Amino acid sequence: MQPADIVYLNGVYVKKDEACLSPFDRGFLFAHAAYEVTAVFGGELIDFDAHMARLVRTLEGIDIPRDDLTVCLQDLHEELISRNGVIEGFVYLQVTAGAYGRRDFGGPETLMPGLFMFCETRNLIGEKAQYGVSAITVEDQRWKRRDYKTTQLLSQALAYRESERGGAFGAILHEDGMVTEAASANLWVVLDAETLVTRNLGRQILPGITRQSVLDHMGRIGMTVEERVIALDELKTAREVFTTSATGLVLPVVELDGKPVGTGKPGPVTRRVQGQYYRGIGADVDARAPWLEGA
Amino acid sequence: MQPADIVYLNGVYVKKDEACLSPFDRGFLFAHAAYEVTAVFGGELIDFDAHMARLVRTLEGIDIPRDDLTVCLQDLHEELISRNGVIEGFVYLQVTAGAYGRRDFGGPETLMPGLFMFCETRNLIGEKAQYGVSAITVEDQRWKRRDYKTTQLLSQALAYRESERGGAFGAILHEDGMVTEAASANLWVVLDAETLVTRNLGRQILPGITRQSVLDHMGRIGMTVEERVIALDELKTAREVFTTSATGLVLPVVELDGKPVGTGKPGPVTRRVQGQYYRGIGADVDARAPWLEGA
Repeated sequence: MQPADIVYLNGVYVKKDEACLSPFDRGFLFAHAAYEVTAVFGGELIDFDAHMARLVRTLEGIDIPRDDLTVCLQDLHEELISRNGVIEGFVYLQVTAGAYGRRDFGGPETLMPGLFMFCETRNLIGEKAQYGVSAITVEDQRWKRRDYKTTQLLSQALAYRESERGGAFGAILHEDGMVTEAASANLWVVLDAETLVTRNLGRQILPGITRQSVLDHMGRIGMTVEERVIALDELKTAREVFTTSATGLVLPVVELDGKPVGTGKPGPVTRRVQGQYYRGIGADVDARAPWLEGA
Repeated sequence: MQPADIVYLNGVYVKKDEACLSPFDRGFLFAHAAYEVTAVFGGELIDFDAHMARLVRTLEGIDIPRDDLTVCLQDLHEELISRNGVIEGFVYLQVTAGAYGRRDFGGPETLMPGLFMFCETRNLIGEKAQYGVSAITVEDQRWKRRDYKTTQLLSQALAYRESERGGAFGAILHEDGMVTEAASANLWVVLDAETLVTRNLGRQILPGITRQSVLDHMGRIGMTVEERVIALDELKTAREVFTTSATGLVLPVVELDGKPVGTGKPGPVTRRVQGQYYRGIGADVDARAPWLEGA
């Protein structure tokens, strides 16, 4: 799916192909930028406040002022959705440290942020959710502050490329024998009928908004979750594996490094989590995900 | 110093303020880009072939094809220098993974690189070389492939900002009690009259071109160099500290975390290395660096 026609860049709405960024932008020269991706479902932004709270946290962490910026972000999101007629899909937002016509590691004492936004129409409850995806495991080579959502995404991009070359959909990252998360999603592992595990928060992973939303709902599906470090061996012998993210929502991982996960089909815990999450965002589950029946 | 007026971007020479990059460029969205900075001295590119060899190595490491690209880079460098009349300064080059009008972690199977270049007139043998600079020590938070010269430079940018807020010039990075390198330069430490140490190559540091050039010349100034890991404690009790980089050349570090290094002035080993390096690039040392007299 291509991004919708109209994007927002530094104060103006322009056609996507006419958007013009200075190559001196610190986002381009230094990856000095934060970003968020917020799902749109039924024309509504999902978990918008939580995404913006995380954005503010990242901006503070990477020294980009947010004073005048964040007050108008909801209007900008809604305007962009409206101009592009998005009912289901997402809005991407990137706040950069700005452009100053030069390259200087430190930059001016007070930075003047730049802002880029686009949106895309996408089916959020589609075939990947129904049939699951395949993934490979890759060493996690990211920087040490993965709890900030920045555009330092090169190792994730390379992990996806490696995965796609092998015919898989995505990658699960690990270091020192321990799983961190998926390349652009949080990871969940079902070890037995009672035990669902996801990595505890810390500098090693992104504090996912969808992750938190799922955690908030787990009581309702009658399971408790252990938030702790997951060994790579545990992942490889798991009954079920799934990921959570703003645009994938809840995606079953049914194949790992070419071998089936559990039965090789989405398992019952994953199905229950999907059903709960879809209902939580107001989806008509019977119509959109009839394959969930009985879950 | 501001960059010169004419920059090169994706096939065209344009005025700096009119350069127009797509915000969908993978360099902007994912930091999927390599870069090099080559010094210009007396109108000549310094160590050009070595910079381009390192560029090719980075491009291979981050999956950007270089087939048609690298053959014309020397002409592009020389044309840009000529159009801007640069006699002394540097040329900056950034090869990105290209723009495709969308955001997709993996991207197309075969990437079509983008290219951005600008140059700047700068005095390469100036007051910083004469008097030395101050630095702070900062935890190294970079990703695990620091031997690739990519635009994943956010932690270096933040280190510089922290340094400048404290009135210092730069930062020296360390992890697990060991020094890696400076935020945008390699690091050298004089422990006693016979012992000059610099970090051994590996994934932890950038294989500096100026670093290699200095190594090649060390025999002539009658010192041997140990290439090994340097403990943070060794740095803090060093007689002399200096950095090497393409635009700083050889810079004495005379203050570290607010305390003088050695006597607090550039030391005799640093001066000999400066003299040797300056002569190596064809500088008239008597005229440009009379403060080296006797070194």
